[in-house]
Amino acid sequence: MKATAFAVENIPLIKPGNDIGRLIVEKTELEEHDIIVVSSTIVSKSDNRILPLDNVKVTPKAKAISKKNGNDPRFVQAVLNESSEVFIESPFLLVLTKSGSICVNAGIDHSNVQGSENILLLPEDPDRSAKKIKETIFELTGKKVSVIITDTNGRAFRMGQTGAAIGIAGIMPTRDWRGTKDLFGRVLEVKNEAIIDEFAGFANILMGEGNGGTPIVIIRGLNFYRESCSIKELYRPETEDMIRRALISRSV
Amino acid sequence: MKATAFAVENIPLIKPGNDIGRLIVEKTELEEHDIIVVSSTIVSKSDNRILPLDNVKVTPKAKAISKKNGNDPRFVQAVLNESSEVFIESPFLLVLTKSGSICVNAGIDHSNVQGSENILLLPEDPDRSAKKIKETIFELTGKKVSVIITDTNGRAFRMGQTGAAIGIAGIMPTRDWRGTKDLFGRVLEVKNEAIIDEFAGFANILMGEGNGGTPIVIIRGLNFYRESCSIKELYRPETEDMIRRALISRSV
Repeated sequence: MKATAFAVENIPLIKPGNDIGRLIVEKTELEEHDIIVVSSTIVSKSDNRILPLDNVKVTPKAKAISKKNGNDPRFVQAVLNESSEVFIESPFLLVLTKSGSICVNAGIDHSNVQGSENILLLPEDPDRSAKKIKETIFELTGKKVSVIITDTNGRAFRMGQTGAAIGIAGIMPTRDWRGTKDLFGRVLEVKNEAIIDEFAGFANILMGEGNGGTPIVIIRGLNFYRESCSIKELYRPETEDMIRRALISRSV
Repeated sequence: MKATAFAVENIPLIKPGNDIGRLIVEKTELEEHDIIVVSSTIVSKSDNRILPLDNVKVTPKAKAISKKNGNDPRFVQAVLNESSEVFIESPFLLVLTKSGSICVNAGIDHSNVQGSENILLLPEDPDRSAKKIKETIFELTGKKVSVIITDTNGRAFRMGQTGAAIGIAGIMPTRDWRGTKDLFGRVLEVKNEAIIDEFAGFANILMGEGNGGTPIVIIRGLNFYRESCSIKELYRPETEDMIRRALISRSV
């Protein structure tokens, strides 16, 4: 197998209302089944998920957490507003977001947002945002592409962050090896490969962060197209998640 | 940024004593700073980490765990022998391996090993194995390359497995964005990107599993070469690992 990958150059600063699908078509020549990886940062900006901290009404719960973890109470409140469950309050907030992802600070970003009193929330429904990009590209080019919207997440047991998928369209989230045979003819039992996170991670390398960031990466030469899909296929149900249960039993 | 990646074709079945560095040089033309990702499966075979289950002497502890999780007691014992700490015993064994990785079943593999009564242990010292491949390639070609040895691991909160680095040579494990500035001139605080896991994941897509597997992938066009490095830079110290502590407090 062989693939090429490149960051799309000359992407302007994204403003609310900008059409990311159209922008991609303008800035690069796409091919059928290209895998287009888009940083959630620009999707959030396009979806106008910029929130002035002063618009946040702080509750006593947010104030209490803020005292523990040292974060701005308005920021803590914004995290709580985006979350349906809190697993860790300090030294950082680990939460279940309303869209189903478990991550630090509900993925809310201070960086790369204009105005130091503004924060950037994750897209409200990342699958919907991915689908919109996919459909715009199909309308403009007739090409069927796969879209992955990414965030960067920390991990248990390992230092550092990696790119992770938070919304998808037109791609199978996992490649299921179960039932296929190994080199010696025995059936594989457990492999179900989370390819969208593997793509998200690699694209993250090509994107970079900070002021040199190029938030759109195209991966070409592989075909994992599937018409119908959802990031929710990748989120582990609570009953099957030993680590989540350990965190819950501990935090009570 | 732009990169290409390809699986090296026509890799024969690896046997104990086979020289993987030499094999790579024979099968493909390398370039300076190529990133060579190698599945731990073939490294283990080359290092003769194949263990007949009948050689394992089962202790009462392994028998007790075997009753809980339903695994062969010899397999459980082999996992314990490779581990320095056990976090979860059932429904699967989550352990700290002697080489420092936290993973299920100490990374021991039933698949792709000749003889159904044989199992395959992870390389004893994956950094050392990576270094050996790197040095052989340098001796034979004069090229300085980066080497990443990978396994596939499950993750907290998310379904499926992804490729993860377990041993490295000639590559920086993380790309540290802390201190660089964002699009609006503010200093980034937290980003330290675990690039070796991001490379491992993407290479895993190109490798495949099962009987069509191509266990060596070359990623070209990026330069993350660093002479001195260790996978241990990526393993989170226990004191900084909330999730590990939650598991420990729960399992007592």
